[in-house]
Amino acid sequence: MSLPALKNDRLIRALLRQPTDTTPVWIMRQAGRYLPEYRETRKQAGSFLDLCMNKELACEVTLQPLRRFNLDAAILFSDILTIPDAMGLGLYFAEGEGPKFERPLRSAAEIKKIGVPDPSEKLRYVTDAVNLVRRELDGQVPLIGFSGSPWTLSTYMVEGGGSKEYQYIKGMMYADPGVLHHLLDTLAQSVIAYLNAQIEAGAQAVMIFDTWGGVLSPQMYGEFSLAYMHQIVDGLKREHEGQIIPVTLFTKGGGAWLEAIAETGCNAVGLDWTIGIDEARQRVGEQVALQGNLDPCVLYADADTIRAQVSNIITRFGNHPGHVFNLGHGIHQHVDPDNLAVLVDAVHEFGHDIRN
Amino acid sequence: MSLPALKNDRLIRALLRQPTDTTPVWIMRQAGRYLPEYRETRKQAGSFLDLCMNKELACEVTLQPLRRFNLDAAILFSDILTIPDAMGLGLYFAEGEGPKFERPLRSAAEIKKIGVPDPSEKLRYVTDAVNLVRRELDGQVPLIGFSGSPWTLSTYMVEGGGSKEYQYIKGMMYADPGVLHHLLDTLAQSVIAYLNAQIEAGAQAVMIFDTWGGVLSPQMYGEFSLAYMHQIVDGLKREHEGQIIPVTLFTKGGGAWLEAIAETGCNAVGLDWTIGIDEARQRVGEQVALQGNLDPCVLYADADTIRAQVSNIITRFGNHPGHVFNLGHGIHQHVDPDNLAVLVDAVHEFGHDIRN
Repeated sequence: MSLPALKNDRLIRALLRQPTDTTPVWIMRQAGRYLPEYRETRKQAGSFLDLCMNKELACEVTLQPLRRFNLDAAILFSDILTIPDAMGLGLYFAEGEGPKFERPLRSAAEIKKIGVPDPSEKLRYVTDAVNLVRRELDGQVPLIGFSGSPWTLSTYMVEGGGSKEYQYIKGMMYADPGVLHHLLDTLAQSVIAYLNAQIEAGAQAVMIFDTWGGVLSPQMYGEFSLAYMHQIVDGLKREHEGQIIPVTLFTKGGGAWLEAIAETGCNAVGLDWTIGIDEARQRVGEQVALQGNLDPCVLYADADTIRAQVSNIITRFGNHPGHVFNLGHGIHQHVDPDNLAVLVDAVHEFGHDIRN
Repeated sequence: MSLPALKNDRLIRALLRQPTDTTPVWIMRQAGRYLPEYRETRKQAGSFLDLCMNKELACEVTLQPLRRFNLDAAILFSDILTIPDAMGLGLYFAEGEGPKFERPLRSAAEIKKIGVPDPSEKLRYVTDAVNLVRRELDGQVPLIGFSGSPWTLSTYMVEGGGSKEYQYIKGMMYADPGVLHHLLDTLAQSVIAYLNAQIEAGAQAVMIFDTWGGVLSPQMYGEFSLAYMHQIVDGLKREHEGQIIPVTLFTKGGGAWLEAIAETGCNAVGLDWTIGIDEARQRVGEQVALQGNLDPCVLYADADTIRAQVSNIITRFGNHPGHVFNLGHGIHQHVDPDNLAVLVDAVHEFGHDIRN
């Protein structure tokens, strides 16, 4: 069955560094806890995982922010840890503690047992949700699919949850690198299959979140994180039903490595707020689009300050193609949703102004 | 009473970019939980704060790592949050949760009440410990004094403890910057008085830890963190009893801003492990010494890997004056102390080799 064609294609055009009438904007975690309607649906669903796995409810929360804000993209509501869960590690969310795995991987034997999950089986709930969202969107804006990066997924899988010191995975990285490479290669193959399945189900752009690449040294980043994102970029369907599918890579804390990230052949690079977007554009702006890069904490300020900070980023990027406005990390749960409305409208206003 | 003169001056010479026979090495948190003798003394003391405030026991744990390892410096055993505690915020350590304040600062009125603590009163326990350590060291190696940076101290004071999102302090930074500037100026004056008192008590070098500067955007880093470290560098006694007192600034995650940090007039810049020391030396190595920059997780590996990683950093720095070897952050509590011995000896061996 053919899916609805796109009416607002600002996001796709900007990711491909084509001219747009104004700067497109979407927000990492735009479907999330800062919205009262999300908290309501979450209550209905039961647990966070129940919400991810129920395609109707996942679709509903994906669409909620689009009803409030003039956003230029939807992003599938899901979790980055769906792949390790499908691998049998037993994902759960301890109240107030973030994600955990019942069976973390600490030995070569455990890692060797892990296989590539077939996305049409244990991850079917994700592609079903993608397909439903895509039909419900009816072409209003494009739908972004996503995955965690192999390195980022592996940190949770080896540590057993979030980490501050990365004792186990970095211990493995320095003491037994071949075992970690085996895990990362399995994950890269899994991410390729998973994202290609999302593309076939209707995702019109994909993004890879390398949330923890920034905890590595430059050499280790190249060897243990970027190399596997490169493998994924090479393995993705870059075109589907006549449309190019842009790929965005985002390494939080990766500002020093933009050139190397751009060299993978991705279409766009995500920026956190610790690098000036003017500097980033000078370094790689002829090669890739840039997505970012407002400090999420700006949304705790008043409307005038939010507008000034939005204007600052748009002015620094300048009148060039290839900017997708976003925060430098996910929106915080305690932000007032009205402040996000101020941000979104300011992006379109200043994005329009700078083109004229 | 005159204090013992220095026998091993490698650290001071390297910080001043003077030639040395080999590369000096010390380790952030070298007096700490990874050492069984530390854990023993800590038990005797009672709480962590009791240990900091007991000059004999603080002196004992400061000296413990020097009995095991061929280190080129001692660093006072203390906490970065002594200043806010002396300001009356009520520092305490919740088991397994890190530092907390009973009375965090959330309003302009609370911030306006804060004054500069006289180091000869409520911080007397620190200068007494400095003086005792200096005498006990008997010139074996130099003693480093330290403080947290104003920005880093303020994050704990406003958030009430450690933070992931910095909601309150960044909210203040964007919504009410004048109030935060008032707090940071008070802290800068306090740090100047505190470090000058440590220098008068016998500290032979000082270091400022800006542990959380890296969570800021480039502009906000300049305005809210670096400006106040600059104020401190300008206000410190840079010479005492005929000896130059080198100043080291360390912003974790500050690799992008090395030029600006070096411009403050400090003698040395600390590096975490996310930047190559060869790149750092090319950028600022003619202006300042560099301290760092091994990933602390290398100490989870075997001796051969540790030696190879040490050699890598010394080779990248090359045969130039101005390198103090260190980890890129504090040593982790679960590291085997024998692995640190391997590291220290490897630094001296390879540091000697590269000079010949």
